[in-house]
Amino acid sequence: MERPVQNFAYTLLKQNGQARLGRIDTPRGAIRTPAFMPVGTVGTVKALYPEQVREAGADIILGNTYHLMLRPGAERIARLGGLHRFMRWEGPILTDSGGFQVMSLATIRKITEEGAQFQSHIDGSRHMLSPERSIEIQCLLGSDIQMQFDECIELPAERREVERAMELSLRWAERSKRAFDGQVATGGATKGQALFAIVQGGIDRELRQRSARALVAMDFPGYAVGGLAVGEGHDAMIATLEETLPSLPADRPRYLMGVGTPLDLIESVRRGIDMFDCVMPTRNGRHGTAFTWSGRVNLHNARHAEDLSPLDPVSTCPAARDYSRAYLHHLVKSGEYLGAMILSWVNTVFYQDLMAAMRGAIAEERFDDWAAETAARLAGPG
Amino acid sequence: MERPVQNFAYTLLKQNGQARLGRIDTPRGAIRTPAFMPVGTVGTVKALYPEQVREAGADIILGNTYHLMLRPGAERIARLGGLHRFMRWEGPILTDSGGFQVMSLATIRKITEEGAQFQSHIDGSRHMLSPERSIEIQCLLGSDIQMQFDECIELPAERREVERAMELSLRWAERSKRAFDGQVATGGATKGQALFAIVQGGIDRELRQRSARALVAMDFPGYAVGGLAVGEGHDAMIATLEETLPSLPADRPRYLMGVGTPLDLIESVRRGIDMFDCVMPTRNGRHGTAFTWSGRVNLHNARHAEDLSPLDPVSTCPAARDYSRAYLHHLVKSGEYLGAMILSWVNTVFYQDLMAAMRGAIAEERFDDWAAETAARLAGPG
Repeated sequence: MERPVQNFAYTLLKQNGQARLGRIDTPRGAIRTPAFMPVGTVGTVKALYPEQVREAGADIILGNTYHLMLRPGAERIARLGGLHRFMRWEGPILTDSGGFQVMSLATIRKITEEGAQFQSHIDGSRHMLSPERSIEIQCLLGSDIQMQFDECIELPAERREVERAMELSLRWAERSKRAFDGQVATGGATKGQALFAIVQGGIDRELRQRSARALVAMDFPGYAVGGLAVGEGHDAMIATLEETLPSLPADRPRYLMGVGTPLDLIESVRRGIDMFDCVMPTRNGRHGTAFTWSGRVNLHNARHAEDLSPLDPVSTCPAARDYSRAYLHHLVKSGEYLGAMILSWVNTVFYQDLMAAMRGAIAEERFDDWAAETAARLAGPG
Repeated sequence: MERPVQNFAYTLLKQNGQARLGRIDTPRGAIRTPAFMPVGTVGTVKALYPEQVREAGADIILGNTYHLMLRPGAERIARLGGLHRFMRWEGPILTDSGGFQVMSLATIRKITEEGAQFQSHIDGSRHMLSPERSIEIQCLLGSDIQMQFDECIELPAERREVERAMELSLRWAERSKRAFDGQVATGGATKGQALFAIVQGGIDRELRQRSARALVAMDFPGYAVGGLAVGEGHDAMIATLEETLPSLPADRPRYLMGVGTPLDLIESVRRGIDMFDCVMPTRNGRHGTAFTWSGRVNLHNARHAEDLSPLDPVSTCPAARDYSRAYLHHLVKSGEYLGAMILSWVNTVFYQDLMAAMRGAIAEERFDDWAAETAARLAGPG
């Protein structure tokens, strides 16, 4: 048996234009990039069995520090053997730092140099997240790829405000790195685990580049682009990527946080992004919308009520071929579990297949052609 | 390939005391009895894939006429090829007559000799169910075992009221039979499908026996005991079975409707019941309670919060062995889909395994010993 790689390492296998085919090795297994990470917010990719997530082709999933620290608690998960064992996911797990959810979910927040004070959205209890505590929690969870603690602000925002948050995030990046190195030194983390930095700066080219340069100087094993998909729109997001990614080193993976639609993914991979996470496939599934190779399908729509055709005959997900649209329409209208289960499954498979297709197109050096064909297909009527 | 039996037939294979091992042959496959039918109310056994229901060992499931007539509608399901195809269940399906749900779910009901007028609990629309319309709907659904339309009243009730409803149900049985025979004559049903009568009469011995005798004189291929598990308690229910079942012919299957707990099932099989349906395994699963071979487990209970042991190490359901109680506690507390999915699955498997164990005990002529041992196990702390 081949001994698994014990260190974190990114290998750029092939480049086609700016699109990158690669592999991240971790002690828990390899991640084929470009990769999409299903979101397992509170320790479960919603409405899916972990076997379905794995079989869909996901090499890595994401867990949310904010949710897990509140319930069941990071120390509790550590006592139970870590997040992997807790949720029965043997592959790599990336955890965010909690910063984004503090801004979007918690109430009565106070941001200081030290960190963020907030109240739980579950029970109103008071908590503090700082770079040091965020890293401590991520280590307690046993996260393979950890994220620096950052301040993520909503757009549009004043440039001065964007700059302040970006500068604060840079100082928090340093503290996050020091905390992570301390965890490695004391056995709370291993060298096989990695801490990624997060480039901030809104949609301002100069701020983004300043953030990227400062973080690259700190030498992280991977870099995320944060603070996008928060209201700026697809074009501004892509423009920001084009302005930011050249400042990042080619030998490190690049992760675009919280993105996005199939088209967002294609255009971001084209600019050189390697990793994504987004709740879109599962959230849309729960709300009755399916992603298919002929476009999005809203199963609430009455036109499906007597449609015996399958959801997506070319999907690799059996459920997309086996159930009629009429039945899925009925399940969605009736608010039945099975509707959310099937659509979350179909969408999770679609996203993984989309990534696999992108990897194939880069390997064959025809990414642009593939992207044009695929964008046309996905603009279909569903 | 063996040609499937084209007629409905019950075979009593073995009797141990009053407990009966048997088989019901239908054109869609055999039903091993005693059988438990998972309830697929609106065309889905809640929170389970149909493959899981089949693999759990269920030979037959139940569909609800009331729910399906309101949404998506019986005529629509017929246009879509029938309920089996609609919900991807190839085995036999039993449908109730809608009478019970009209009483328990609908509003502004008016019961006349003709039938029941009611308003939908979904959108308030007005509907009528009569013996003729109930049979028509069950034929449109393509039900393999159909139930006569009856009036089911809540207990306790005045004897006079119980008698009135029982007598009305007898007249409705005749009309149901005539309607079903008419459907067979005109091709709306086949001889391989069957119509069961429902014995009513509350917990009154004389009324029950009068109902049973009158229905037996009409010669149905199967008889249900209805109107129990509606507030009378376990002992009164079992006493009523003891008083009623001797009036039913030994060569026809006997179905106890809407029952029940594991102990209810065991004690009813001991008295000679062959078929059951109940929402208990799935409803309890959605609400965080598991049935295990060492008793019921309420996963909400904080004592499970750090319990790494599996839910039920002797279950044949992989989920009962693979996930820790701590994780299930977390899922249930967090209201996650996966909690309901896992517990509904575990409970559905438990109920099927309980029936299989009863069939085995009857075959080995040790039902009473088995029942005593099992009752002791199931009284455990979970």
